[in-house]
Amino acid sequence: MDKKNLDEFFIILVEPKYGGNVGATARVMMNFDFNKLYLVNPCKLYDECYARAMHAQSIIEEAVFFPSLNEVAKKLDYLVATSSIEHKTDKKPLRNSIQINDFVERIFELEGKVGLVFGREDYGLYNEEIALCDVMLRIPTSKTYSSLNLSHAVSLVLYNLYIKREYVPKEKRKIGRIEKQKLLDFFTDLLDEINYPKHKRENTKIMFKRIMGRAMPSKWEYHTLMGVFSRTIGKIRNQKNKKN
Amino acid sequence: MDKKNLDEFFIILVEPKYGGNVGATARVMMNFDFNKLYLVNPCKLYDECYARAMHAQSIIEEAVFFPSLNEVAKKLDYLVATSSIEHKTDKKPLRNSIQINDFVERIFELEGKVGLVFGREDYGLYNEEIALCDVMLRIPTSKTYSSLNLSHAVSLVLYNLYIKREYVPKEKRKIGRIEKQKLLDFFTDLLDEINYPKHKRENTKIMFKRIMGRAMPSKWEYHTLMGVFSRTIGKIRNQKNKKN
Repeated sequence: MDKKNLDEFFIILVEPKYGGNVGATARVMMNFDFNKLYLVNPCKLYDECYARAMHAQSIIEEAVFFPSLNEVAKKLDYLVATSSIEHKTDKKPLRNSIQINDFVERIFELEGKVGLVFGREDYGLYNEEIALCDVMLRIPTSKTYSSLNLSHAVSLVLYNLYIKREYVPKEKRKIGRIEKQKLLDFFTDLLDEINYPKHKRENTKIMFKRIMGRAMPSKWEYHTLMGVFSRTIGKIRNQKNKKN
Repeated sequence: MDKKNLDEFFIILVEPKYGGNVGATARVMMNFDFNKLYLVNPCKLYDECYARAMHAQSIIEEAVFFPSLNEVAKKLDYLVATSSIEHKTDKKPLRNSIQINDFVERIFELEGKVGLVFGREDYGLYNEEIALCDVMLRIPTSKTYSSLNLSHAVSLVLYNLYIKREYVPKEKRKIGRIEKQKLLDFFTDLLDEINYPKHKRENTKIMFKRIMGRAMPSKWEYHTLMGVFSRTIGKIRNQKNKKN
């Protein structure tokens, strides 16, 4: 089965009070390839909103307005309430939440349109709005100050969806087995040339292998390093020959 | 050894132009238990800055000001440049980057103070500023519109560090600023001794810095590598002297 596309996700802001936050939300939506914005009874969207949207003003222009979350619920298949505040007891099933990492593992398997619901800057979502949602998604934050800025909350949820869905780590053509072995051979040659203590040699070679294993050099880095090694070894041998 | 604490991380904004972004950065720092803010030649911090900081105004009040990133570099052990823009070729060692997931896997093993460097809203970081950093951290974003709002970029990096911190295994002590510099100095000496082409020298040095930045050597690895370098350089010099 194909993975759910990002355009099957709808970002829903419930009664946002500051146009700047709506604009910043539009921008971060575009940063992560989302484009469907639903606004429930928002503030007026003045200049500040468009200024903060930057290149994402089209998302604001194409936003759909609703009088209540109830009306949104009729359009979508699955609603996700979001919160950064943790509730101590799981005896409150209303606010019983799923963690963001677990959420992104599973949400793409779901069929249909998914609404991500973000509450008011001050009061968040009301209980009856949370009750409309299928799941409560919790963003882990500090116990000292848990309340995230609205567009920051949006950015964290969208980023996590984006990297889960889209991001296939792009390999910078790492070096393969043969190149790795050549690099190690050159390092071994160098140890020979400098009369490196025999009893330390094996451990030092393994260390070099580990360092390169962690650094994972690209092809270009490999060739450059080989160049430095080869010059160094050449220099030592050359001087030796001249001496003899 | 205890895990690295979040207060060993320093959030560095280079020449931010909008006070609102500085305030929003302070807020999200507090949301994720970070508290050290360094400001390099920032704009004036008026009301908008304090308004957006919300309950995190103390972070603004305790922020430390610097005239340049160069001055910051003298205070910290490891500098991380951040960018959401990907550069196609890895032949540009300057912008050769590590992905955020790999970064948070390793950074807690490092000893010393880590600076997370965020560039200007419009131009990001200049090349000479990136060259000062040990590693370039890339935040994956849309190909359509990759430029993140400043405080959104901060929020994504801090969130990933925050959630990772709980699961860090204990590890060996990594090298600090002075040892790092010595290693780079030895590598530079080696390039001199082997008459490495002048026009390639700068890129090759940065490449070496990046490889070591990704590998994050332990103290033992550092001393062993230094031993190899020092023997190699000694050998070349020694032969040169005998020849003369």
